[in-house]
Amino acid sequence: MADNSFGTRFILTTFGESHGEKIGGIIDGCPPDILLDLEKIQAELDRRRPGQSAIVSQRKEKDQVIFLSGIFEGRTTGTPIAFFIDNENKKSKDYDHLKDYFRPSHADYTYFKKYGNRDYRGGGRSSARETACRVVGGALAKQLIRPVEIYAYVSSVGDIVLEKNYKELDLSSIDANIVRCPDEPTAIRMQELIKEVKKEGDTIGGVVSCVIKNVPVGIGSPVFNRLEAQLAKAMLSIPAVKGFEFGSGFEGSKMRGSDHNDYFNEDGSTKTNYSGGIQGGISNGMDIYFRVAFKPVATLLKPQEMLSVDGTLKIVEGRGRHDACVLPRAVPVVDAMAALVLADFML
Amino acid sequence: MADNSFGTRFILTTFGESHGEKIGGIIDGCPPDILLDLEKIQAELDRRRPGQSAIVSQRKEKDQVIFLSGIFEGRTTGTPIAFFIDNENKKSKDYDHLKDYFRPSHADYTYFKKYGNRDYRGGGRSSARETACRVVGGALAKQLIRPVEIYAYVSSVGDIVLEKNYKELDLSSIDANIVRCPDEPTAIRMQELIKEVKKEGDTIGGVVSCVIKNVPVGIGSPVFNRLEAQLAKAMLSIPAVKGFEFGSGFEGSKMRGSDHNDYFNEDGSTKTNYSGGIQGGISNGMDIYFRVAFKPVATLLKPQEMLSVDGTLKIVEGRGRHDACVLPRAVPVVDAMAALVLADFML
Amino acid sequence: MADNSFGTRFILTTFGESHGEKIGGIIDGCPPDILLDLEKIQAELDRRRPGQSAIVSQRKEKDQVIFLSGIFEGRTTGTPIAFFIDNENKKSKDYDHLKDYFRPSHADYTYFKKYGNRDYRGGGRSSARETACRVVGGALAKQLIRPVEIYAYVSSVGDIVLEKNYKELDLSSIDANIVRCPDEPTAIRMQELIKEVKKEGDTIGGVVSCVIKNVPVGIGSPVFNRLEAQLAKAMLSIPAVKGFEFGSGFEGSKMRGSDHNDYFNEDGSTKTNYSGGIQGGISNGMDIYFRVAFKPVATLLKPQEMLSVDGTLKIVEGRGRHDACVLPRAVPVVDAMAALVLADFML
Amino acid sequence: MADNSFGTRFILTTFGESHGEKIGGIIDGCPPDILLDLEKIQAELDRRRPGQSAIVSQRKEKDQVIFLSGIFEGRTTGTPIAFFIDNENKKSKDYDHLKDYFRPSHADYTYFKKYGNRDYRGGGRSSARETACRVVGGALAKQLIRPVEIYAYVSSVGDIVLEKNYKELDLSSIDANIVRCPDEPTAIRMQELIKEVKKEGDTIGGVVSCVIKNVPVGIGSPVFNRLEAQLAKAMLSIPAVKGFEFGSGFEGSKMRGSDHNDYFNEDGSTKTNYSGGIQGGISNGMDIYFRVAFKPVATLLKPQEMLSVDGTLKIVEGRGRHDACVLPRAVPVVDAMAALVLADFML
Repeated sequence: MADNSFGTRFILTTFGESHGEKIGGIIDGCPPDILLDLEKIQAELDRRRPGQSAIVSQRKEKDQVIFLSGIFEGRTTGTPIAFFIDNENKKSKDYDHLKDYFRPSHADYTYFKKYGNRDYRGGGRSSARETACRVVGGALAKQLIRPVEIYAYVSSVGDIVLEKNYKELDLSSIDANIVRCPDEPTAIRMQELIKEVKKEGDTIGGVVSCVIKNVPVGIGSPVFNRLEAQLAKAMLSIPAVKGFEFGSGFEGSKMRGSDHNDYFNEDGSTKTNYSGGIQGGISNGMDIYFRVAFKPVATLLKPQEMLSVDGTLKIVEGRGRHDACVLPRAVPVVDAMAALVLADFML
Repeated sequence: MADNSFGTRFILTTFGESHGEKIGGIIDGCPPDILLDLEKIQAELDRRRPGQSAIVSQRKEKDQVIFLSGIFEGRTTGTPIAFFIDNENKKSKDYDHLKDYFRPSHADYTYFKKYGNRDYRGGGRSSARETACRVVGGALAKQLIRPVEIYAYVSSVGDIVLEKNYKELDLSSIDANIVRCPDEPTAIRMQELIKEVKKEGDTIGGVVSCVIKNVPVGIGSPVFNRLEAQLAKAMLSIPAVKGFEFGSGFEGSKMRGSDHNDYFNEDGSTKTNYSGGIQGGISNGMDIYFRVAFKPVATLLKPQEMLSVDGTLKIVEGRGRHDACVLPRAVPVVDAMAALVLADFML
Repeated sequence: MADNSFGTRFILTTFGESHGEKIGGIIDGCPPDILLDLEKIQAELDRRRPGQSAIVSQRKEKDQVIFLSGIFEGRTTGTPIAFFIDNENKKSKDYDHLKDYFRPSHADYTYFKKYGNRDYRGGGRSSARETACRVVGGALAKQLIRPVEIYAYVSSVGDIVLEKNYKELDLSSIDANIVRCPDEPTAIRMQELIKEVKKEGDTIGGVVSCVIKNVPVGIGSPVFNRLEAQLAKAMLSIPAVKGFEFGSGFEGSKMRGSDHNDYFNEDGSTKTNYSGGIQGGISNGMDIYFRVAFKPVATLLKPQEMLSVDGTLKIVEGRGRHDACVLPRAVPVVDAMAALVLADFML
Repeated sequence: MADNSFGTRFILTTFGESHGEKIGGIIDGCPPDILLDLEKIQAELDRRRPGQSAIVSQRKEKDQVIFLSGIFEGRTTGTPIAFFIDNENKKSKDYDHLKDYFRPSHADYTYFKKYGNRDYRGGGRSSARETACRVVGGALAKQLIRPVEIYAYVSSVGDIVLEKNYKELDLSSIDANIVRCPDEPTAIRMQELIKEVKKEGDTIGGVVSCVIKNVPVGIGSPVFNRLEAQLAKAMLSIPAVKGFEFGSGFEGSKMRGSDHNDYFNEDGSTKTNYSGGIQGGISNGMDIYFRVAFKPVATLLKPQEMLSVDGTLKIVEGRGRHDACVLPRAVPVVDAMAALVLADFML
C-alpha cells in the first residue's frame, strides 16, 4: 500500500528517512492567493525540534524548512508546495551497536519482516523524524482554516495528571513551560518526573489533550468519513499512540443517556458538551476536544534484552540521545494532524 | 465529500435510509473463485437484528440479505457483489412527534444544518440501521481472510466491568448469553442493569472489546495507513462510539518503558503484549486487541427538552422502540469493521 | 483492482452481469435538494434500449430503472442514490453453443485468463449491458450540471461519413431518425448500410461525435487530471472504443501553429476553435467537441473460427440477437460518460 | 482538485514551476529491494532535455536528477523516492513582453481564469517543463516492469508520414537520428520540414507512435479502469496532445467485423492484431500499440495577435527559445506515461 499521503483533497505526501540527507514533502490541493506566514510554520517546527530544552532529546538539528514551489511573493499559487528539511545530525555510529538486533516494542522487527530490509540507524520511515514533515503540512493547513484555533497540550505524564479541564486553563500559556502543560504547578511535577526517569535511563508515557475552537457547524460526514473517525485515524497514525477518545470518551460509556445528553440552548448551542462538538459525524459548533494516549518510548538507555537477527537473545547496552518522554515534542504533531484533518474537510 | 465507501482495495459502498424501502450495498475488490458460506453472513446479520432478545429494541425486522450479483453457484466471480435488505418495519408514525424537534445529542441537528433537510423518521443515513450493511460486508470479508479470527464481546455496561482479560475468557461462549459477555456472572449483572435502565426509559453506554487472532506478521503500513490508524477510523465511524484504545491503551501512558516493552522470545513472539500485536503500524503476529467505548443512546423514552425548528425549547415525550443499551447489537458491527480493515490490507 | 467505480467526488459504482437477475448501481456525492426529472432519466435509458428500432438488437428488455434511495418527494437528499434494472431477457440458451469457445476479438479470452472463470452467456462485466447503468448515472448527472448541454450523435458508419461539422447541423434533430445522425440524407445512407451488413450476418463500426455547450471557463485541471484526459479515459472505458480526439484532433497534428492558433476576440472568446474548448487542461468557455471511434462488434451471425478451451480451432455458427452496428445505441452512453466527467469536476 | 498525482498504487506526485528554483517529485508504492540503474533514468531525461540537437529548443538545462530518499546502495528500500531537478535556465526576462498578454491557444488564459494568477514566465504548472518529472518517474517504472519493453517514436511531422508499420521498422534505431523516427529517409524529410518551419518562426505538429512488447496476458480491468482507458488518460494528460487511438483506431471504425476480428492461433495468440493487444480492457499478450496526436506548439517566434489583460487586442512580437516541433522531445514522455500506467497495474 502506497502509504505516504494523508488526505483526499488537501493532501500531504512525505518522504525521507531519519538518516538520509533530507526529509520533506509535497502539499497538494492548497487554494491560490493565500498569504502565508512562513515564520509561523518554522515556529511550529521549532516546537518539535530536538534540543529545545533540558527534558527532550539533545540531538542537534536546526530543522529549517525550505520551500521549493507553490509560493510566490509570500502567497500560495494553487500549485503543489514542496519543501524539505536537512538531516544535519545523522550520527549513524550511535546506532552501530543495534545493527544486528531488534529492539523490543520497536518497529525494527515488523518492518524487517514486511520489507526484508530495515534501517537500524533510527527506524527509517517508522522513525518519529517523519513527523517533522507533518508539522510543516499542519502548520500551513492551520493558516488556511482560520478562524479555527487548535490547542494541544500535555495533560498527563506517567501518573501525574492535570486535573483541570480545558475551560479552567489559560490556553495561551501552553508554551510558558518546557513540558507544554498550561498549569504551572502540574508542569513542575511533570518536569521532575521526566528528569527522574531520564536519569534512570528509562522512559515514560502520557496524554496530550487537544481543543479545537471555532469550527463551523456542518464539518464532517455522517457515515464512514465522520469527523471523529478521521481525527482518530490521524492521531493513531502518530508513532507511539495507543488510544484516542473525544468528548466524554471512555468515561461516557459509564453514563446514562439522561445524564449524557447535551440539552440545547435556544441558539442551537448546548448547555453541556459531552458530545465533544461532534454529533453524527458532523461538527455542531461547540468546542471539539479529545485526548491522545502515548506509550513510553521503546528505546531506553538502560541495558535491554534484544533479539538478534540470527534468533538469539542478548542483553544490549543502550546508547544515543533519545527522549525520555516524547509528550512535549508530540504537542505540535497532534496540533498538525488535527489541522490536516480539518483542512481536508474544509477546503 | 462522497462518504459512503470504506476501503481502497476491498471496498464496501452502502446505501439506504432507515425508513426507505431497502438498504444495501456493493462490495468491490473481492477475488474470484472463493466459496462463500452465505448462511454465515445471514447469521451475523441475525446477531445484529432488533427483536432478537428481551434486552434490545423490539422492532421487528427479519433483515434477510439478498445477493444480486457477483456470486455464481456459491462462489465469488471477481465482479462486484451487490446486496439488499428490505426495511420491513418502517412505522414512521412512531416519529411524527419529532417532526419539528431536534433531539439532544443526536445527529438531527447537525445533519439538518449540513444538508438543509433531515429524515426525522429515524435519522436517515446517520441511523444505526446503516450498520446492517456493514455487517454483510464484514461477514463476507471474514471469509476471505482466513485463518484470521475476530472475537468482539461486551466488556462493560455502565459501571459493570468484566474484570478478566481476554486470555481468561472462553471466547467461543460469546453468544451463550444475550448480552454477549463471555462471563456468565458478569453477563447476568449487565442484563439486570439494562433491564433496570430500560424500565426507567433511560439508556446506558458500555465498552466492546475485540481480539483478533492469527493475523500474519507484516500486515499494515508504517506511516499514515498504520493498522491501528485504520482500525481506529473504522471503529470511530460506528455511531455512538467515543473512544478507541489498543494494547496497553490509556493505561499504558502511565507506564515506564522498561515495564511496557515486550521482550522477545527466540521465535520472534513476545513475552508480554502491551503492544497489542502492532508495532510501527505493522502486525507482529501476536494477538491484536482493542477496546471501543460507546456512549448511551441519545433517544430516551423519558420526556426530554428538545429544540424546535423555530428555535424554542419544549419538553417532548419519548416514544418508539429503541435500544436501552446498544452494546449487544454493536458486537457484530465491531467484528465487521475489523474484518473490513483487515481485508483491505490483506487482499 | 477494484474497477467498478467512476469519479472521485461524484462517483458512480455499478454492478451486475448481463445474465444475472438485476444490474444497477450507487451514485455517491450528489448534492441535496435538487429536483430531479426521473422521466428524463428513463427516456435516456430508452434511447439505449435494445429493440427500439429495426436496426438494433431485437432483444426485448424494458430496462425500467427503479430508484431505491437518496430521493425523497422527487428531490435528492444528499445521500447515496441506489438503483437497479431487471434483466428480463436472459435467454442464456442463446449462448450454449459458445460454452466451450472463445470468440475472436472478444473479452471472453482475456477475462478467462485473468479471472479463471467467464460468463460465456454474454460477457459478464465486460458485456455492454453494463453501460445501461452508466446511462442512468450520466442522465442524472446531466441534471446537476445545468446549463451545460451535451449532444452526441452518429457521424460515421463504416465509410459513410457525415461531412458537415456540428455548427452546420440541427442538434435538436438527433433523435429524428433511428440512426441518430442529425442529417437526414446521410442517416438514410447509414441505415441502408447497416441493413445490408446485418443481412450478411456481419457488423460495422463508426464514429460518435459529441459537442458540449455552456461549460463555464475554468473547469478542469492543468497537470494529470486535465479535462481532456478525463474525457479520454471515460470514452475509452466504453466497450468497443478504439480512439478519441478532441478539437482539431489527428488532423491538427498536420497543421502549423500560425494556422492552428485560435485568435482571441476582445471578450476572451476565440475566432476559431481548433482547441476544442480546452486549453492547458481547462475549459475556455468555447464549445467542447470530440470524436469517439467504435470498432465493429466482434460477435457475428456468420460462422467464425473460434478457439476452444482445450486449444483447438473450430468453425462455430453464429446465433443470438446482436447489434450489427452499436453506434445508434452508443450515443446515449457517450452522452452519459461526458456528463459523469463534468459532474465530477463541477460538483 | 488536487491534480498533481498519477496512479493509485504506483503513484507519482510532481511539483515545481518552470521558473522556480527546482522541479521534482515523489514516487510512492515502489517495492523494496529492486536494483535500479540510475544512469538509465538520467539517460531518459537527456532524451527529453532542451538543447540536445539543432531541431529542438536551444535553452540550456542540464536536467540532472538528484535522488533524495528511498534508495540505499542502489536498491529501492520500499519507502518513497523523492527527487529533484534544478531549473538552471530560468531567464524570465525572455517573457517580460508577455506579462500583460494572453497568448492564443495557450493555457495562459484558462489558467488565469481558474486561479486568478498566472506565471507568464513560461506557463507555471501547465508548462511542458513539468514533464521532466514524469520522465524520471516513468524511467524508474520501466525498471520495475521488466520484461515489458516500450518503444515510442515519431511517426509523422506535419504531412510527412512514416508509411511503414512498426513491424517493418528497426525499433532499436529510434535514437539513431535526432527526430527519433526509425526510418532514415523519412527522418531526413521530417528534419528538413522542422528546420523550414523554424526558420519561419512557426511551429508544426505530428504523431508519436508507441509499441509495448511482452505485456503478460491479464493486465487491465474490464469496466472503468480498462488498460486502454488508463493509457488514453495518460496520453491526453501530456501538454499539446489532441488524440489517442490504439490498435485499428479510427480506421478500424470503417471496417466490418468479419475483417476486423483477430482470429486465434491454437496457442491463444492471434493471426492479426487489430485489437492492439487489448480485449475487453485486458491485455491479451499480443503487442500493444497506439498513436498520440500532438498539435503544433502555440508559442511562435512570429508576431501574433494577443489579448491584453485589460481586454484589448494587440500584435505582439515573438521571442524566446521555443521548440518549432515538440515531437522528438515528446518521445520519452510518451514512453514514461506508458510505463507509469503499466506499473500501476502490474505492481
